[in-house]
Amino acid sequence: MQNGIEEIYEDLKLPPEQARDAHRPYVLVNMVASLDGRAAVGGKASGIGGAGDRRVMRTLRSRVDAVMIGGGTLRAERLSLGLDPEDPKPVPLAVVITSTGDAPLERNLVRDHRQRVLVLLGENAPEEKVSHLRALAEVRRVPAEPSGAVDLRRALRMLKACDGIDVLLCEGGPTLNRALISYDLVDEILLTLAPTLIGGPSEQSLTLLEGPALQNTRGLKLLSVNVAEDEVFLRYSLHTDAPNPP
Amino acid sequence: MQNGIEEIYEDLKLPPEQARDAHRPYVLVNMVASLDGRAAVGGKASGIGGAGDRRVMRTLRSRVDAVMIGGGTLRAERLSLGLDPEDPKPVPLAVVITSTGDAPLERNLVRDHRQRVLVLLGENAPEEKVSHLRALAEVRRVPAEPSGAVDLRRALRMLKACDGIDVLLCEGGPTLNRALISYDLVDEILLTLAPTLIGGPSEQSLTLLEGPALQNTRGLKLLSVNVAEDEVFLRYSLHTDAPNPP
Repeated sequence: MQNGIEEIYEDLKLPPEQARDAHRPYVLVNMVASLDGRAAVGGKASGIGGAGDRRVMRTLRSRVDAVMIGGGTLRAERLSLGLDPEDPKPVPLAVVITSTGDAPLERNLVRDHRQRVLVLLGENAPEEKVSHLRALAEVRRVPAEPSGAVDLRRALRMLKACDGIDVLLCEGGPTLNRALISYDLVDEILLTLAPTLIGGPSEQSLTLLEGPALQNTRGLKLLSVNVAEDEVFLRYSLHTDAPNPP
Repeated sequence: MQNGIEEIYEDLKLPPEQARDAHRPYVLVNMVASLDGRAAVGGKASGIGGAGDRRVMRTLRSRVDAVMIGGGTLRAERLSLGLDPEDPKPVPLAVVITSTGDAPLERNLVRDHRQRVLVLLGENAPEEKVSHLRALAEVRRVPAEPSGAVDLRRALRMLKACDGIDVLLCEGGPTLNRALISYDLVDEILLTLAPTLIGGPSEQSLTLLEGPALQNTRGLKLLSVNVAEDEVFLRYSLHTDAPNPP
């Protein structure tokens, strides 16, 4: 169970042969949390996981076609969605999804010249935001829900149909995670449990999922447990009828 | 790693030979949480864990001298602090700790005639509460902090000196857990990760720890990982200098 960190998820075969929905990518959510379930401190996830978590995050990215975050996560902190510079593997597509167009790419996205960046934008986002973003990345309008939020099912179908994305890794934040799960658009959750306790008021210390309570998400299937340097790497399927992992 | 549920923590040897503080019990905190870190739904922890968690909770109780909860946890739901009726092992002392004396023993504590029940009460709790509780259980006054909260260090020392408690299991709630940790009075955290997602507003879905952010709790040491029926049972030491487990 104690693994070399470089072995964790190295042999992941994605997508599985029998995906449940051929019209969208197979979707993984990967997050790090403290033992007390905090996935962000002061809005930021960085600093919770250690070097092992960082390494595993890179391994996962190298196994998928696209890495997606919500606009709020990009607003919260400066981050990369790519691989390490010396990694020769193909760099996944970076996807930033935002209803409002409030996505500070120039300030907070660490760019890798090898990486294509796509912003999926709610159809109600103001035109000046779109023009601004077009100068920085590819931009695509997506139909919105009546609430104004991006229609996530449509967005995922677009990524499959237009960009050939078969496997998508979502790295949060908690609002996007919860929305995807509530629409039954997540196939797996990969959770790094960091050996730390955070506490603090809930408005500062977010959990993995933010939003109204979920229905029908009992009985996830544990696919694997890996341990390295006191961090625990857990992989779950959201489908109780998932086959046993190889 | 996949264990029979009846084996988990069966061979726990507590307290360890070199306890850090001989003047108080060795303190374990045991909690169950969902993958998204929720330790209570609508204030109640019951319903998050499965049969395995219930079994492991009973095993742990049979390894300790006392089981402690805070008054808030007893107010939130009806619960037992003992063993299963058919279990022949000695039943641990039940301890309810409350600053205010607001501990509805008669309504919410499932009594086991074999179990001694002790209420530790803040010295500022009103006398009529004390009289009421004395009719139901043993009651002991404990000095209070300037805030009015029970002085937990004094409370633990009393349990050691007056009741011979060498190993204490705390089963929450989140406010008591956090207070004990913040005073560096916890030796181990045992966490059951239930294969479920809960979500929901933070005021309804508590995390393991409630209260101000903690300091200096990075780098917990992972002592063991057990898995049974998709539940993961994690055992951590809060002391980074803890010896490796047998």
